[in-house]
Amino acid sequence: MTEHAYAVVLAGGIGSRFWPLSRLERPKQFLKVFGEQSLIEDTVHRLRHRFQPENILIITNQLHEERTRRLFPRLPPRNIIGEPLGRNTAACIGLAALLLRARDPDSSMIVLPADHYIGDREEFLCTLERALQTCRNQHLVTLGIQPTSPETGFGYIQFQPEEIEPGVYPVKTFAEKPDLKTARLFLQSGDFLWNSGIFIWETRTIVEALERWLPETWETLEELSTQLDSPDFGRHLAHCYRQLRSISIDIGVMEPASQTPGAIRVIQSSFPWNDVGTWAEVHRMREKDGGDNVVVGDAVVVDSNRCLVHAPDRVVALVGMRDTIVVDSDDALLVCRMDAHQDVRHVIARLKEDGLHELL
Amino acid sequence: MTEHAYAVVLAGGIGSRFWPLSRLERPKQFLKVFGEQSLIEDTVHRLRHRFQPENILIITNQLHEERTRRLFPRLPPRNIIGEPLGRNTAACIGLAALLLRARDPDSSMIVLPADHYIGDREEFLCTLERALQTCRNQHLVTLGIQPTSPETGFGYIQFQPEEIEPGVYPVKTFAEKPDLKTARLFLQSGDFLWNSGIFIWETRTIVEALERWLPETWETLEELSTQLDSPDFGRHLAHCYRQLRSISIDIGVMEPASQTPGAIRVIQSSFPWNDVGTWAEVHRMREKDGGDNVVVGDAVVVDSNRCLVHAPDRVVALVGMRDTIVVDSDDALLVCRMDAHQDVRHVIARLKEDGLHELL
Repeated sequence: MTEHAYAVVLAGGIGSRFWPLSRLERPKQFLKVFGEQSLIEDTVHRLRHRFQPENILIITNQLHEERTRRLFPRLPPRNIIGEPLGRNTAACIGLAALLLRARDPDSSMIVLPADHYIGDREEFLCTLERALQTCRNQHLVTLGIQPTSPETGFGYIQFQPEEIEPGVYPVKTFAEKPDLKTARLFLQSGDFLWNSGIFIWETRTIVEALERWLPETWETLEELSTQLDSPDFGRHLAHCYRQLRSISIDIGVMEPASQTPGAIRVIQSSFPWNDVGTWAEVHRMREKDGGDNVVVGDAVVVDSNRCLVHAPDRVVALVGMRDTIVVDSDDALLVCRMDAHQDVRHVIARLKEDGLHELL
Repeated sequence: MTEHAYAVVLAGGIGSRFWPLSRLERPKQFLKVFGEQSLIEDTVHRLRHRFQPENILIITNQLHEERTRRLFPRLPPRNIIGEPLGRNTAACIGLAALLLRARDPDSSMIVLPADHYIGDREEFLCTLERALQTCRNQHLVTLGIQPTSPETGFGYIQFQPEEIEPGVYPVKTFAEKPDLKTARLFLQSGDFLWNSGIFIWETRTIVEALERWLPETWETLEELSTQLDSPDFGRHLAHCYRQLRSISIDIGVMEPASQTPGAIRVIQSSFPWNDVGTWAEVHRMREKDGGDNVVVGDAVVVDSNRCLVHAPDRVVALVGMRDTIVVDSDDALLVCRMDAHQDVRHVIARLKEDGLHELL
């Protein structure tokens, strides 16, 4: 029996809130912020317990194409696709759908970010299996994580309470990152889940959805369909991408599609999950010392609490600090208040203004 | 007319609260924390406006003897004396007195630390002139700085209100670093001055005081008097120093001498002065930006106030920080709450425990 299920790993982002470790040349998914392996290695190795190498695709930036191939030598080289420039997730997923339709018109796709943390592989793979079943009825399927706290850093999915099968619900709405008060209401209400950014659908279903909700994007991409095996594919792809607008699959497809009752299904999922979007998340997730500090590298910690130190190559001394992020790299250093972690973006903006491109 | 006045610069300390910039190999007085010149250069150049090179002595650690000679090539090499080990200021001043007595029995000494900030050279040199006059009557003379705020980081000198000449008073007591409440009382009372650690006396006066208050120290040192021109002086000095106890001139001589009413004179001094003992002092003294930050090097400062960044070689980004000291060096980094600056000493202790001697 042919295996029609493919995993599509989205590895095109930078994760600029992880500066100074994350750079254009060294995006978040390649960092070892959790341990021995990078997040993209964790992601692919997790998938390898269910998928053959031929059935795993990675979409990344062209800058990182070769490096990704070296990292996963068992994946066929053609399964690692380099985007000429970033055009957000709708373009990226559209491209994957185009490629998979050509390889296998009956394929299904599991689309998932390269740089998320998932804590229970077995439970995760089980959930994917149920999602693959559910998507057979031409549904767009997404995984919603059972929330355990009123997080303000994640998007939410509200489901309709009519359970279709165990743990499978029709989606009512998608909600942006809430403030704390709203997040608490979401948690209390019981019908909101964290939006994991993991999608499951048949290739033909997402193609139909793109045709309907993002017709220009899809038409532009479809012009490539005669060039897929051309030696000039790269040039055509670059030409195509320059015409695409930058829009996420959430805004471009999922939100308008959710207006049609029952079009989208969410699977209530209970594996530990985190999008690891900021250093503060790393602090929250990693094991702490008696002072609630997370320390990577040699550090001398004196009277300090709730700090994160990531400094593998130099000795850092923390004295009398509270709730502070200290991240060292070869040529730059970040010292940031824990609850200002989102503002690391302002640093990037300032470095651009100052022309310090080598630090971006 | 022979010039009998000599300046003796005490340059034997480490200034370990300036870690990670200050090291055994690179003590505070050699650091450029205020600008183009190191504190020892500032000190010697200031003295050169009044003293011939022959009349300036520098007592430093043997580790730094050659470096100090290179820094001040116009000073006679024999005027730069390397101590084999640190034995605090009584030993150091006793040694200087022994050397000067041999060179010129009628000499006077101005003893001053190498690593203090002095803001008004003219006023400073004028004050020294008055002190040299005052010391001619066999008095131990010290400079007391008119306090401008209730500092808790300095020692204080209480004077008796009977003015002997304009601005010259008998010393009543020496007071250790006070708490804030006491410091405020000192400031209100009007008869307390900051203890500058600058002393002026005739060589014979301090020799008599040492004979009286620290007889063992003086006797041990005096055994060297027949060896001053010996090619083996270094070995004899090392032998002598190992027998000396470590005690400051303040505790060993000034405090017991102050029990005799009128034995010590203090000159009320008004030049800007600071012992620059900690990074917090550097922050207080240097010019600040609109957010009250002092920044040395390239830094990206986002929503941060009252911080000190010393990072000449790498880009530091501060995000959302308050009252924080960040000091970068090649192999170590300090992140310290401003009001915990004294606790940098605990870092040194920890590095010793951990055997990281290359960082001391």
